[in-house]
Amino acid sequence: MAGESQNWVLMVTAQTPTNIAVIKYWGKRDETLILPVNDSISVTLDPSHLCTTTTVAVSPSFQKDRMWLNGKEIALSGGRFQSCLRELRKRACDVEDKKKGIKISKEDWSKLHLHIASYNNFPTAAGLASSAAGLACLVYSIGKLMNVKEDESQLSAIARQGSGSACRSLFGGFVKWIMGKEEDGSDSLAVQLADEKHWDDLVIIIAVVSSRQKETSSTSGMRESVETSLLLQHRAKEIVPKRILQMEEAIRNRDFASFSRLTCTDSNQFHAVCLDTWPPIFYMNDTSHRIISIIEKWNRSEESPQVAYTFDAGPNAVLIARNRQTAALLLQRLLYYFPPTSGDLDSYIIGDKSITKDAGINGIQDVEALPPPPEIKDNIPSQKFKGDVNYFICTRPGRGPVLLSDESQALLNSENGLPK
Amino acid sequence: MAGESQNWVLMVTAQTPTNIAVIKYWGKRDETLILPVNDSISVTLDPSHLCTTTTVAVSPSFQKDRMWLNGKEIALSGGRFQSCLRELRKRACDVEDKKKGIKISKEDWSKLHLHIASYNNFPTAAGLASSAAGLACLVYSIGKLMNVKEDESQLSAIARQGSGSACRSLFGGFVKWIMGKEEDGSDSLAVQLADEKHWDDLVIIIAVVSSRQKETSSTSGMRESVETSLLLQHRAKEIVPKRILQMEEAIRNRDFASFSRLTCTDSNQFHAVCLDTWPPIFYMNDTSHRIISIIEKWNRSEESPQVAYTFDAGPNAVLIARNRQTAALLLQRLLYYFPPTSGDLDSYIIGDKSITKDAGINGIQDVEALPPPPEIKDNIPSQKFKGDVNYFICTRPGRGPVLLSDESQALLNSENGLPK
Repeated sequence: MAGESQNWVLMVTAQTPTNIAVIKYWGKRDETLILPVNDSISVTLDPSHLCTTTTVAVSPSFQKDRMWLNGKEIALSGGRFQSCLRELRKRACDVEDKKKGIKISKEDWSKLHLHIASYNNFPTAAGLASSAAGLACLVYSIGKLMNVKEDESQLSAIARQGSGSACRSLFGGFVKWIMGKEEDGSDSLAVQLADEKHWDDLVIIIAVVSSRQKETSSTSGMRESVETSLLLQHRAKEIVPKRILQMEEAIRNRDFASFSRLTCTDSNQFHAVCLDTWPPIFYMNDTSHRIISIIEKWNRSEESPQVAYTFDAGPNAVLIARNRQTAALLLQRLLYYFPPTSGDLDSYIIGDKSITKDAGINGIQDVEALPPPPEIKDNIPSQKFKGDVNYFICTRPGRGPVLLSDESQALLNSENGLPK
Repeated sequence: MAGESQNWVLMVTAQTPTNIAVIKYWGKRDETLILPVNDSISVTLDPSHLCTTTTVAVSPSFQKDRMWLNGKEIALSGGRFQSCLRELRKRACDVEDKKKGIKISKEDWSKLHLHIASYNNFPTAAGLASSAAGLACLVYSIGKLMNVKEDESQLSAIARQGSGSACRSLFGGFVKWIMGKEEDGSDSLAVQLADEKHWDDLVIIIAVVSSRQKETSSTSGMRESVETSLLLQHRAKEIVPKRILQMEEAIRNRDFASFSRLTCTDSNQFHAVCLDTWPPIFYMNDTSHRIISIIEKWNRSEESPQVAYTFDAGPNAVLIARNRQTAALLLQRLLYYFPPTSGDLDSYIIGDKSITKDAGINGIQDVEALPPPPEIKDNIPSQKFKGDVNYFICTRPGRGPVLLSDESQALLNSENGLPK
């Protein structure tokens, strides 16, 4: 280890997307290594709207590993974080920054401490896969800092040990997490099925749903499902393998009808397994059910499905529209049923605002003037559910992790390695 | 056919209970004959609180078959009703009423028309298995009128063709519907596992839950599940047969812990299959989920389970308490979380009012004074959900069908065979 003084700080900043599974991961066959009972497939979400930014810094002056999440220091004692760090340190290589006159040899990494600052550009507790983006970003940025030579797939096997679904955030577009067969988990990793340009018609609208219920964490929830659900193994062994092949084909062919059917039925089956768990786990609530009914009714009124829905371990709906035009029609329907409680549309529909414009919504008066969707025209006047959705996020499939080389985007101070 | 004149009317009045399945029936292998994909087991509910009363009358003066349900005439064109009537007419025997001087020979029945009046002592549309009690009562009373010699099990195979779960209402206590193997359905019938005195500690409280959702009928729901759920066949073939044996043993031994676990998990699995249907079917709502959470939390705080829950094709909770003392504690919890919207307790808790007394509830002030249940004492003050339950029915396991010989209880006028 060499530097002009012991006060140098070397930093890397990266940005990593979240992802939403369209064929779900639910159940581990190995709790420590985080090895799943089935393959899963996800869509990576555009990091402009949902991402984690992480800065990792190393300095001989650091006394211990420290981490700040959204500006608040958090404990780093967790076994999962330590697993990732151990795997990365094993693979660390020589690093030289000639400009700064810093040289770190392979062996030095085991003695050096890290400072990590991580920031989500979306609410952490809203059930939007913040841990997937967070762990992926941690592994990716530390990997770059330590000059780890492994490719994204190999890095994904490390991120997997931090948070299972994090492995799918190492790529953009459409990603498959292969469950693997090896006992050591070395072949349980993510591969890219198609990049984000392959099917760039798709638009994604997330309804962040109000909830009065405390939710079961996905870690304990899936453990309980593995232990008690009599349907889970049948799903994992007999149903998912076929769906994985069908989903790969649907993505390859940009076949929205198949993609939609597989996405919706697999989400429903995952929640069915939760309900078959003892005690039962309910992630969806009446609002989630209502959104499903709205989409199902609309899809059935059209010649082919317009929108797919999927729900993770919480009540939020992730809605995938076949194209921008459909997304605008979807947003109109969502705003018709779930108008905002205040007139402030700007904080009610966030992300890609151009969809709101396409939907002809320029102010609260346009929401109030929305007619009932044509598919319910013969029914009794439908109810509205003001207050049942907190806000909507408009986004799309997006790219994988990137390095941010502009130091102004770093979350740590380059002088002392503390949060800015 | 002989009588002093053509104006005689011969009548029979019977009363038949509803039943609630503890191992669920969901899915037919034959739609016309109503043959199920698995065995099911039910508890018959006390007819004092939930039953159908039916009067059937025959007279040579009747021009056609007619039926009145809760005082309103309804069409009898339904194929299922006709199936039952055809089967009963096939088995009709000679009938003689010497006092009235009436003689009907076996052959006459195919020429005679019936008047039928049926009355439920509970709301028909509330999702309380009114069709099970109704069809069972129809078959039982017509069977008596026509002097059909078949026993209750054989009659159950006829009632089954009217409404599947009706076959289980031909017996009191604990009843098994054997799915059978024959193509003609002749061995798909109900048998009594134990009468209502076998386990008479049990107390049942039904929460009739408010719902804003239009529900899928169970007939179309189970058809869609059979056609689209990838979990249903696995449940029917691999899971239910084992549960049936375990449930029979639990009932035989009055083993509440096993009974409760089997009842709850089987209800949850039935709803899981509904969710795995495409499009998904939601029968439980947030209130149903809330009741489950309350029961699960309480059961876990005790050494052994106190209450079992089960839900049919709707949001209503059927709660089975291990004994009267537990039922009083259950009612306290239910009233704590779901107080009545008005002060009128008398219409809010119906059925066996003695449970209300046991719970120390003599007026609305006692409801308001209820402390939070001890199992939540360390938690933040819990929310209350006024208005989410319409009313409660307190009842118990009960007897099978009975004939009401007192003519004052008949629903038809003995002079003209029209509703009183």
